[in-house]
Amino acid sequence: MKTLLEAIRPTTFIESEKLKTHVGIDLTIASETFQHTGSFKFRAAYNLAASVPNDEILTASSGNFGQALAYACLLAGKKCTVVMPETSARIKIDAVKSYGATIDLVDTKVTGRNERVAQLAERMPEAYFASAYDDPFVIEGNSTLGDEISAKDFDAVISPIGGGGLISGISKGLCRQSSQARLFGAEPLLGNDAFRSLQAGKIVRNETEPMTIADGARTISLGNLNWEIIKSGVERIFEVSDEKIKEAVRLLFSLANLKVEPTGALTLGAILENKELFAGKKVCLVASGGNVDPEIYRQILAG
Amino acid sequence: MKTLLEAIRPTTFIESEKLKTHVGIDLTIASETFQHTGSFKFRAAYNLAASVPNDEILTASSGNFGQALAYACLLAGKKCTVVMPETSARIKIDAVKSYGATIDLVDTKVTGRNERVAQLAERMPEAYFASAYDDPFVIEGNSTLGDEISAKDFDAVISPIGGGGLISGISKGLCRQSSQARLFGAEPLLGNDAFRSLQAGKIVRNETEPMTIADGARTISLGNLNWEIIKSGVERIFEVSDEKIKEAVRLLFSLANLKVEPTGALTLGAILENKELFAGKKVCLVASGGNVDPEIYRQILAG
Repeated sequence: MKTLLEAIRPTTFIESEKLKTHVGIDLTIASETFQHTGSFKFRAAYNLAASVPNDEILTASSGNFGQALAYACLLAGKKCTVVMPETSARIKIDAVKSYGATIDLVDTKVTGRNERVAQLAERMPEAYFASAYDDPFVIEGNSTLGDEISAKDFDAVISPIGGGGLISGISKGLCRQSSQARLFGAEPLLGNDAFRSLQAGKIVRNETEPMTIADGARTISLGNLNWEIIKSGVERIFEVSDEKIKEAVRLLFSLANLKVEPTGALTLGAILENKELFAGKKVCLVASGGNVDPEIYRQILAG
Repeated sequence: MKTLLEAIRPTTFIESEKLKTHVGIDLTIASETFQHTGSFKFRAAYNLAASVPNDEILTASSGNFGQALAYACLLAGKKCTVVMPETSARIKIDAVKSYGATIDLVDTKVTGRNERVAQLAERMPEAYFASAYDDPFVIEGNSTLGDEISAKDFDAVISPIGGGGLISGISKGLCRQSSQARLFGAEPLLGNDAFRSLQAGKIVRNETEPMTIADGARTISLGNLNWEIIKSGVERIFEVSDEKIKEAVRLLFSLANLKVEPTGALTLGAILENKELFAGKKVCLVASGGNVDPEIYRQILAG
């Protein structure tokens, strides 16, 4: 079986003169849209599948982590069960299925997702339950992106933030490489729990799952392990409106030929609203993934 | 001034498990969508701008070559004039303008494009007139992509074909590196002059500019220099229907997270219609560029 570094695709660094000119800042995009399964989550999932001794892994995810874990388990020769809401888009269910995972569809009106996971965990005592962010193997897997970014000598790095798995991993990688780059988070304004957590000095939770267009950041709160890293490793978190996220998706399409999902555009959205902070700096924007339904993408492009 | 190899962005090789599974062939995409100015044309334009002794360069292009030459001339400190039809999309005119080129808008109902170029050439006797494909510097610039592809050991390479600038360059690069890969062309069925030329053993022309959705391949005929290379270097040319081109754009979006312009999707379209020829082979599909109007892209995604 391949090592983590053999298995992942190095991030794709993209520079666009048009985008730089438009924003007025020396930007480089670290795009994870071409990572296996279409998002950075494969780094986390592969590391987890390759590292835990269990032959069976269980997770709850309607999005990128489910796909990534399913594929990682296929490569690792392990069984994988993904709990998904019955209402998940068919395209997402099919993607997980195509990697050979078992799908457990749950009617979230009757049974909560966490409740269902608890039921399954009881039935599968040998299985490892994988959180998409609050897990040491996840953070360690994502830290490889921090290593790659460190090699480029940026003044600042902006990462999307949801549960905190990606940014805590990047922080770990930057630290390990003694990078001088300052690390910032970009979070949907509609679900600004990380922003509020950093202000309060402790984890603050959203009351309900925030209905932002950035569906990869619809988390209730940061994970505990993530928070321990974020509270000292992240300098500031920018709250980005859904309108700005959509504008960023359109700019990446038109000026950089890059298809990103809304969550992946958070970082460009953040810099559009905070240009003055980055004048004269060399900035890396992490585009976390590219998986978005064509119809949603069409609506965003229509402006 | 940078050398050609310093100035260009190496092509971005993309492999997608989902796409491979869908097509049933071991595919790799060589994507030029992130090349400077968004298409392979920058390779040609930079080589030309850096190589000719003239301080002024003139071309006629409403598309990718205009943008690429404008940017290359900006980098080379040369003057650039681009003749474009008055009816060109505003977005394309602005792109050329943004690189500092002079734009000469021509009312093609009154004055033909070639006529206008002849007028200008007479007024600017010091200027070098650059064909977008039928030019030795153009072919040499594009040959760098052939060099890069050679390093990967493919059994077959499929390239889009319009005027023949790209495929003749790739052929030159593959030859120079003694690559064993077989080279194929992918051309819009609506403008199948290259297919007919290869059959006839001489250049055959379309009667009018073919109105295919692959606007980068709306050429009347192959160039002379290109034909000399293509007639012996290209094994076969596939004619691809506009419907298949659109399907390929959608598949690249959904399965590979790749935004391509219709001309860039010709190669996937070709393989979708000729799978049996490539069973068990390792195939490289060249995606020549990514510049497409959002509205056209939206229409294609709608299916």
